[in-house]
Amino acid sequence: MQVMEMRDAWGVDHIKPGTRPDRSPGPGEVLIKMQAASVNYRDLVMTERGYGRHSGELPLIPLSDGAGTVAEVGAGVTRVKIGDLVCPAFAQLWVSGVLREEYRPGMLGGPLDGVMQEYMVLPEAGVVKAPAHLSAIEAATLPCAGLTAWSAIVGCGVKPGDVVVTQGTGGVSLFALMFAKLAGATTIITSSSDEKLARATALGADIAINYRTYPEWSREIRQALGGRGADLIVELGGAQSLDQSLRAVRTSGTLALIGVLSGGLAELNLGRVVTQNVRLQGVTLGSREAFEDMVRAIETHRLRPPIDDKVYRFGEVADAIRAIPAGRHFGKICVEF
Amino acid sequence: MQVMEMRDAWGVDHIKPGTRPDRSPGPGEVLIKMQAASVNYRDLVMTERGYGRHSGELPLIPLSDGAGTVAEVGAGVTRVKIGDLVCPAFAQLWVSGVLREEYRPGMLGGPLDGVMQEYMVLPEAGVVKAPAHLSAIEAATLPCAGLTAWSAIVGCGVKPGDVVVTQGTGGVSLFALMFAKLAGATTIITSSSDEKLARATALGADIAINYRTYPEWSREIRQALGGRGADLIVELGGAQSLDQSLRAVRTSGTLALIGVLSGGLAELNLGRVVTQNVRLQGVTLGSREAFEDMVRAIETHRLRPPIDDKVYRFGEVADAIRAIPAGRHFGKICVEF
Amino acid sequence: MQVMEMRDAWGVDHIKPGTRPDRSPGPGEVLIKMQAASVNYRDLVMTERGYGRHSGELPLIPLSDGAGTVAEVGAGVTRVKIGDLVCPAFAQLWVSGVLREEYRPGMLGGPLDGVMQEYMVLPEAGVVKAPAHLSAIEAATLPCAGLTAWSAIVGCGVKPGDVVVTQGTGGVSLFALMFAKLAGATTIITSSSDEKLARATALGADIAINYRTYPEWSREIRQALGGRGADLIVELGGAQSLDQSLRAVRTSGTLALIGVLSGGLAELNLGRVVTQNVRLQGVTLGSREAFEDMVRAIETHRLRPPIDDKVYRFGEVADAIRAIPAGRHFGKICVEF
Amino acid sequence: MQVMEMRDAWGVDHIKPGTRPDRSPGPGEVLIKMQAASVNYRDLVMTERGYGRHSGELPLIPLSDGAGTVAEVGAGVTRVKIGDLVCPAFAQLWVSGVLREEYRPGMLGGPLDGVMQEYMVLPEAGVVKAPAHLSAIEAATLPCAGLTAWSAIVGCGVKPGDVVVTQGTGGVSLFALMFAKLAGATTIITSSSDEKLARATALGADIAINYRTYPEWSREIRQALGGRGADLIVELGGAQSLDQSLRAVRTSGTLALIGVLSGGLAELNLGRVVTQNVRLQGVTLGSREAFEDMVRAIETHRLRPPIDDKVYRFGEVADAIRAIPAGRHFGKICVEF
Repeated sequence: MQVMEMRDAWGVDHIKPGTRPDRSPGPGEVLIKMQAASVNYRDLVMTERGYGRHSGELPLIPLSDGAGTVAEVGAGVTRVKIGDLVCPAFAQLWVSGVLREEYRPGMLGGPLDGVMQEYMVLPEAGVVKAPAHLSAIEAATLPCAGLTAWSAIVGCGVKPGDVVVTQGTGGVSLFALMFAKLAGATTIITSSSDEKLARATALGADIAINYRTYPEWSREIRQALGGRGADLIVELGGAQSLDQSLRAVRTSGTLALIGVLSGGLAELNLGRVVTQNVRLQGVTLGSREAFEDMVRAIETHRLRPPIDDKVYRFGEVADAIRAIPAGRHFGKICVEF
Repeated sequence: MQVMEMRDAWGVDHIKPGTRPDRSPGPGEVLIKMQAASVNYRDLVMTERGYGRHSGELPLIPLSDGAGTVAEVGAGVTRVKIGDLVCPAFAQLWVSGVLREEYRPGMLGGPLDGVMQEYMVLPEAGVVKAPAHLSAIEAATLPCAGLTAWSAIVGCGVKPGDVVVTQGTGGVSLFALMFAKLAGATTIITSSSDEKLARATALGADIAINYRTYPEWSREIRQALGGRGADLIVELGGAQSLDQSLRAVRTSGTLALIGVLSGGLAELNLGRVVTQNVRLQGVTLGSREAFEDMVRAIETHRLRPPIDDKVYRFGEVADAIRAIPAGRHFGKICVEF
Repeated sequence: MQVMEMRDAWGVDHIKPGTRPDRSPGPGEVLIKMQAASVNYRDLVMTERGYGRHSGELPLIPLSDGAGTVAEVGAGVTRVKIGDLVCPAFAQLWVSGVLREEYRPGMLGGPLDGVMQEYMVLPEAGVVKAPAHLSAIEAATLPCAGLTAWSAIVGCGVKPGDVVVTQGTGGVSLFALMFAKLAGATTIITSSSDEKLARATALGADIAINYRTYPEWSREIRQALGGRGADLIVELGGAQSLDQSLRAVRTSGTLALIGVLSGGLAELNLGRVVTQNVRLQGVTLGSREAFEDMVRAIETHRLRPPIDDKVYRFGEVADAIRAIPAGRHFGKICVEF
Repeated sequence: MQVMEMRDAWGVDHIKPGTRPDRSPGPGEVLIKMQAASVNYRDLVMTERGYGRHSGELPLIPLSDGAGTVAEVGAGVTRVKIGDLVCPAFAQLWVSGVLREEYRPGMLGGPLDGVMQEYMVLPEAGVVKAPAHLSAIEAATLPCAGLTAWSAIVGCGVKPGDVVVTQGTGGVSLFALMFAKLAGATTIITSSSDEKLARATALGADIAINYRTYPEWSREIRQALGGRGADLIVELGGAQSLDQSLRAVRTSGTLALIGVLSGGLAELNLGRVVTQNVRLQGVTLGSREAFEDMVRAIETHRLRPPIDDKVYRFGEVADAIRAIPAGRHFGKICVEF
């Protein structure tokens, strides 16, 4: 079968077509005909072997996120059946509860082979049924971006009437916006583009702030809220936004730390964190059971994941990854097989 | 000033007009011109001195729930200003956190005098600003029914995609229905009246079940959910519904125990509770800070509390209390001053 | 290899020696030479097929709890090595988080074969390393009694200075007593035997109450605590003790519902639960990760599980089960292979 | 009555003796004859008006923490009686739940007058009975250092078998060490002084690490724990220790951010926080109800607060404050009246 892989060298430029032997599902396993994938910032880091030993070894098939149709099931499989649209769980070993270090060897797209393959064989425990109303491309956005946003919003306990701030118009931010709305929150979004802000407003953002126009955007938030801070801030900007986020959050509020777009080493005002009892919560992915909870919420509300207009083809996966740092997208960058 | 009170004897038949001296607010106090009240099942029990020593002593002004306008503020008051529509907090001493026994002496409508008075003087800490878009009658439904429902839904951690069952069409049940919708849940409501179910459906109930038609309504719920149980059941029925509630809830799910309409001594299937790790959580009222959170949610979503069509006048408060056991109402029974 | 099993008929009288073919561990599996088992109330119910379809089918090897030494490991096994003393996890599928209905088919001792076999083959994910300082008999008490007590004490959030009440001197109660002490709590224990109470006091109980001498033992507790109620009550008595437990717990306190020794259908005073915001939490077992947390705590404090003086031999397992309802034991009833 | 105060100018050098009129307690108030105080890092900042508008105005009586005996009670007081040893609650308005910005005006020692006065009049709601076995000096250490450590250990959910790291041998660190032991944890302490480490070991520290000898002390911790990280790190060092703390904590573990001794602007490795789902929780003080929980724990275990050998007199309070940055103390620096 066909795959895209890094064979001899790390780097997005070295992702090439390749082949792997066909496999049949053993007991408890399922064979998935993959149909779509989506790209995350992590994939960019991974192709540069940026996570060191956690990146795995060459040859490596990239991308953690995808969706496909169950083509065959092994003996004893009960969680899915042939024809189901499913997503591989990004963290194959993380069934429930909080992240443990021992789950790290089970991550797709490094150190395990990722989703850029015609067919995948996975244990049924590592597969989640996609929401029934979604296309394969839409479902392919869920395993990392969707689930991370879900963990930030639901895991941090957003409740009706809360105010949630989310940064930028990438996949995690727009998912967070939509999940926060489902949970009854008022939503505030920041971006450097008025056009993207207009699109986010159409998706349900209550307040849109251009952080180039208002570099001290925390003041805009405080003013809009009558002096009060936000309950939860989905921190995606990293080094450049952390201080504004700290100024925008309420006493005893939460920053969900997810992204490091503008730099991974940030200056932290400890005094502010301490005296205001702020919680900074690192958020990466979520368990398979959280994934299933998210699927139920998406189905209940017939939510549609945010997909960028430009969709790439199987052989163009390197371009899809390169589009991440370019930053011209709105929503998830996807690959259709 | 005018009040309604039980002077010489306990019992709803003994609620009579009376007078009390006018008072001015001292430092940190506010004077409220009361405009509306609402009636709870507790008021019925209280008039019979059903809570023993916690009922207080005669003379007693009944009703815990009301709303009015700030007419005067004492020195140093900052939380409200003249003209604000406010609600007295039912539990005057419960500022935050969980219920403690030491807060019980601070309950309005017994042992403290209740809201059936032209003017009330309260510490500013015992007063909450009502949502700006509500009438006084609507605001008067919040301190007990609204807040108890809020504690059940938000305190038990309902999240988007969850399934919440609520019982009957009294005030707590309809508030719970509305708050569950705000939190992104699918809602199921039970009643013995198809007409009331139709009205609840119009308010947003996703599934409506007549428990006379389906005495084993837990089966209807299981079937509607594909075998899965509900995540949270707002238990208002008491002895007659507890067993069905236990059969309808999922493993590791929650019953919020609030009401005892059909009896306060219930037979409990311990084996089912234990083997399915069910949580039964007694829920009464909530703190003032939870009240403020609820107000923000109601304002954000411009929710309108469910008011029964029949509204009573100040002097008819005894009739309003008698309407509770009659059970013909839909939503809250209110008194307009 | 030798086993004890019910072959042709359910019932403790039908537990007979039998044989099963030897097996080797496949990839990811371990072969355990079993050395000890312990008996739970559930085993008594199970031998009567008391859990219906969840009991599984004949032939069935009884007992969920045991310990043994790893004799062989399959390819890729990393969690244990040859020679390790390990316990099979009672709930083979419950890795983390809360109990889900889908884990029920993975319970040992019904519906899956139990531990009364010379050798067991299990996936490495279903095995937990025992505390290093324990004997096999001691370790055999952990999977059900130990873990359930751990879930009650730690899962319900006991903190230093809390007061924990536990009932009787069976395994769960004594484990709960010991874990509550580790967590810094004051402990109260009830029993019908002054002699057993004396032994419990030697194990660290701060207050010991004979519930035959004081049938209204909640009053003794209230008095000892200066009127305050207990923070957590480990409810093992069932129908006969539930009401006293409710009277002994503080407002906003917790009853961990575990046992039904005196009856599974109890009369519940709903009014008390509701007005005092009591939480009744069904507790059964715990996840494998909770098991590992418990092992670490036991190792840290070099705790020794409470073992009854009378230990049974492999062929006497039926007698060991019969000793449960007789109720003469102090601590866990164990079987040595 | 006598006080120590800053009258005309901010600064520790300007703390001078002064007098204030005597006062009697009004309804709901208590008069306390103060007997001891203790000094916190905050007092040093406060004397420099380092918290801006939150510092209040001159004249200001310094120090937030003290203890004394109830000398007189106003009408209706029930929480304490004459002769009780009590502590003023540092945050007079924080009764329960989490910190809210609106509690900030109620802080003693700035903006409100602090404890350096012969007599204080406070509302009974702002006073907590001290543990019965403590001296006034010992009790004076509880309101800030004790309660902050309690919030870090108990508020972050330490359970038996967990590993807790605490930094230095100041009051918060030693309290955290003792509370972590009560909760069943293994404790690790760091200091730059082998002599202080020896004293901490005598107080119950399981592992003691000199961070001058081992600047990369996170490696020592990892090694001692077999590669695993600590569950909770009480971060007191600030800028200089934050990175080592992040390296020493386990995946999904917690840093309780409290102190900024080596600098309040720290470089934070966001990537590490995110990929390991670490929680950084700002911790300051705690509610009055948390204070009461702490008192019960201290009484239960007859814990004795850690007091530095050198105790200052009333008129030497400026020297007591100056001793904080000098850093030669072990435990709390106290003032005896």
